[in-house]
Amino acid sequence: MTIQTPLSEYRFDPDAEHGGIDAGFIAVEVARLLHDGQASAVSEFLQTLELADIAALIEELEEGDDLAAMALMPLHDQAELIGYLRPSSQVSVATRIRKRDLVALMTAMSHDERADLYKQLDEEAQEAILPALSKAEREDLRRLAAYEEWTVGSVMTSDYAVLQPDMTSTQAIEALRSQAIDAETIYYAYIVDTERHLLGVVSLRDLLTARPRQRVGDIMDTDPIFIRVSDEQEEAARMVARYDLLALPVLDQDDRLVGIVTADDAMDVSEEEVTEDFHKTSIVQPLEISVAEATIAMLYKARIYWLVLLVFGNIFSGAGIAYFEDTIAAHLSLLFFLPLLIASGGNAGTQSATLMVRALATGDVKPTDFGWLLSREVVVAVTLGVTMALAVSLIGIWRGGPDIALVVAAAMVAIVLMGALIGMCLPFIFAKLRRDPAAASGPLVTSLADVLGVLIYFGIASVVLELG
Amino acid sequence: MTIQTPLSEYRFDPDAEHGGIDAGFIAVEVARLLHDGQASAVSEFLQTLELADIAALIEELEEGDDLAAMALMPLHDQAELIGYLRPSSQVSVATRIRKRDLVALMTAMSHDERADLYKQLDEEAQEAILPALSKAEREDLRRLAAYEEWTVGSVMTSDYAVLQPDMTSTQAIEALRSQAIDAETIYYAYIVDTERHLLGVVSLRDLLTARPRQRVGDIMDTDPIFIRVSDEQEEAARMVARYDLLALPVLDQDDRLVGIVTADDAMDVSEEEVTEDFHKTSIVQPLEISVAEATIAMLYKARIYWLVLLVFGNIFSGAGIAYFEDTIAAHLSLLFFLPLLIASGGNAGTQSATLMVRALATGDVKPTDFGWLLSREVVVAVTLGVTMALAVSLIGIWRGGPDIALVVAAAMVAIVLMGALIGMCLPFIFAKLRRDPAAASGPLVTSLADVLGVLIYFGIASVVLELG
Repeated sequence: MTIQTPLSEYRFDPDAEHGGIDAGFIAVEVARLLHDGQASAVSEFLQTLELADIAALIEELEEGDDLAAMALMPLHDQAELIGYLRPSSQVSVATRIRKRDLVALMTAMSHDERADLYKQLDEEAQEAILPALSKAEREDLRRLAAYEEWTVGSVMTSDYAVLQPDMTSTQAIEALRSQAIDAETIYYAYIVDTERHLLGVVSLRDLLTARPRQRVGDIMDTDPIFIRVSDEQEEAARMVARYDLLALPVLDQDDRLVGIVTADDAMDVSEEEVTEDFHKTSIVQPLEISVAEATIAMLYKARIYWLVLLVFGNIFSGAGIAYFEDTIAAHLSLLFFLPLLIASGGNAGTQSATLMVRALATGDVKPTDFGWLLSREVVVAVTLGVTMALAVSLIGIWRGGPDIALVVAAAMVAIVLMGALIGMCLPFIFAKLRRDPAAASGPLVTSLADVLGVLIYFGIASVVLELG
Repeated sequence: MTIQTPLSEYRFDPDAEHGGIDAGFIAVEVARLLHDGQASAVSEFLQTLELADIAALIEELEEGDDLAAMALMPLHDQAELIGYLRPSSQVSVATRIRKRDLVALMTAMSHDERADLYKQLDEEAQEAILPALSKAEREDLRRLAAYEEWTVGSVMTSDYAVLQPDMTSTQAIEALRSQAIDAETIYYAYIVDTERHLLGVVSLRDLLTARPRQRVGDIMDTDPIFIRVSDEQEEAARMVARYDLLALPVLDQDDRLVGIVTADDAMDVSEEEVTEDFHKTSIVQPLEISVAEATIAMLYKARIYWLVLLVFGNIFSGAGIAYFEDTIAAHLSLLFFLPLLIASGGNAGTQSATLMVRALATGDVKPTDFGWLLSREVVVAVTLGVTMALAVSLIGIWRGGPDIALVVAAAMVAIVLMGALIGMCLPFIFAKLRRDPAAASGPLVTSLADVLGVLIYFGIASVVLELG
């Protein structure tokens, strides 16, 4: 059977902008085919797509059409597809399909993804599913779903490959072959004793290159990198990246293997972590879900806290201006330079803070590097300040004469240096206080720099102009 | 032989802060052992460490000691270790070891890492090495080193595993076994014709689970995800993450396989990309190397451009103030609220901009989502503005009476809405102009919001207070 639509010409095209597929365009065609009773054409087309692209397509389809399209896929593919959908779409699909289908789907899903889905379901749906699962699956599901959101436990999966130390490499490869259907990865296998204590890790590559009769116990790495189930999930992501791992074993406090964190899940965690850092550095508090899915109330809650706090912080800038009211009244032309000067302090500070926040997050610099970084920052900041002072003194001469130009230039150097030092130091202070350096946000640095900027500018002005 | 130092108790400890090792502490012990002639103790200790940790250790050692420690490792480990060192350390090691050792090392290194190192060497060192390499290695090196820094070609590697379509799965596994020493990964293998056109991709997992006599050509995915060698490297990182790949094949314009991008290299690319985005959103232009390694001149160059540009931008805020000089002179108490109001516009705008920049970067929202995002933003911004207006009007009554309170509250709602809309729209405008949305930085948004904030505040003030 051939497809008589533009879909037949549609295939993955990396030369198209951003690669992938145009899900919106395809969804219209797929919906039309489904309504025309050409299900087998759709089925054929879906086979040419990657799961991530099918997920994008499913999310574009109307309710009903999405289930019809999914039903055309083999169960195993459906189970994998679910993991590519947004959490809200997963729940939407799970609550609309028949309970029997949901049980089949959840049985076939990877253990970590089904636990994530399970957690999102309401209590009623949860209790409808549990009895239909096998005892082992039920216990696995309950256990994985119980870990707190920020822990390694919440991102690990329990479907890892296991080997015994006295197997030969040939037997081990045979064992992995039989575990390949269920295991999340068979490229790393874990060797445990009868109490599931982790004895070692072996890669399929090492098994393949070993002599056929060599024992797994002699090939395995007996001192493997691991993480604790109660550690922070970001730490797992950092370790996967640092040690270039495909999967990281997770141990409980008694050194028993309880799961693995795969590289692709680690990548997702580190993407979430980066998003959180981005938000923090612009005074948005962590959102539980994606920006696209966040409600107005969630966005309000994430944003209002720091906005109001900084309003009160900026009262001090206002108070600084009020303090110098006489000087300002006598030299109103000073006001022209106020925005430009205090903005420069904030801008230089924002630069310094972000450079440090990011370098600390990637491990590019360490808290102990503070000393030499500070001295380098002073040199950079003074050079920046002098350049900007030159630019601004020209405007100063034009707007207010040499006295004003002098005041403005001197204030610029001092303010840029002050802003840069605040921005540079704040992330390290936060790190020292065991808080996230990312909280040293641009807006916080800018507010601090504003207050001091007002004092520096009018302070210099009152001294120079009153002497003059 | 046993080690009579604290090192014997030193092992990987995930319960220690940040996991990994304390390289600084270990370096002192290792240096002492090397100077005491206890090389074999060091050698034994190094075997207990992961390569990433040995790299951290090597960078802490003095010149001379680092080479002595490296020399204790097998050549194959040394070759892999090099890739974990910072670029500047790689060059430092390469220029200090004997040419013969460097040639041996570079022959054993993975193809992408040695091309990166080669590019960093000066011309003299490059020309000293080339003749000592085999013809094939020389050509591979020249070819990989020739790709521009931002392309897929510059991050791909050419040591991938290759299979023929008419092999049985058993023969294919045997072939991978023999390629395991050289290939960067054997978990994905690539099937090419005699002209190296990519026919398909097969995973080792699929080969293992296939029937022994099944042909590779019948198992392989004949429509695999791929990327072009001249595409942007970020695109490769995005595809690896989107499709959960361990490696992504790279084709030239004639559909010939020229390399693969592995997942760990993709992770490095996306980390660099995130760093660049962080810097852009705080008006730091891309640094070629890490912040820790950047010189004062590099930092100055990356920071001065936007700082000076925004000084001139802020002249408009100054001009706005100058325009309302009469109103201000008549009501100097207005100045108290100036910093607080214009900062609020900038802060709300920074939040909106960052939320959008990051959501666009992750694909969480698309440029076509602009409409509904804008309407949601209006509601959120008005709610935020009203909350802040309530807070600030209390201060207004206390500082300047009901008239001032009214002016300040009205200005707050208008300024927060204006700031949020600028922050929300700018990333989409940049995307539309095919520029990086990340250029919609906090400081740029803040500067725009400052200018309009001044006009809104004093505009409202002059109307209300002059009527009153």
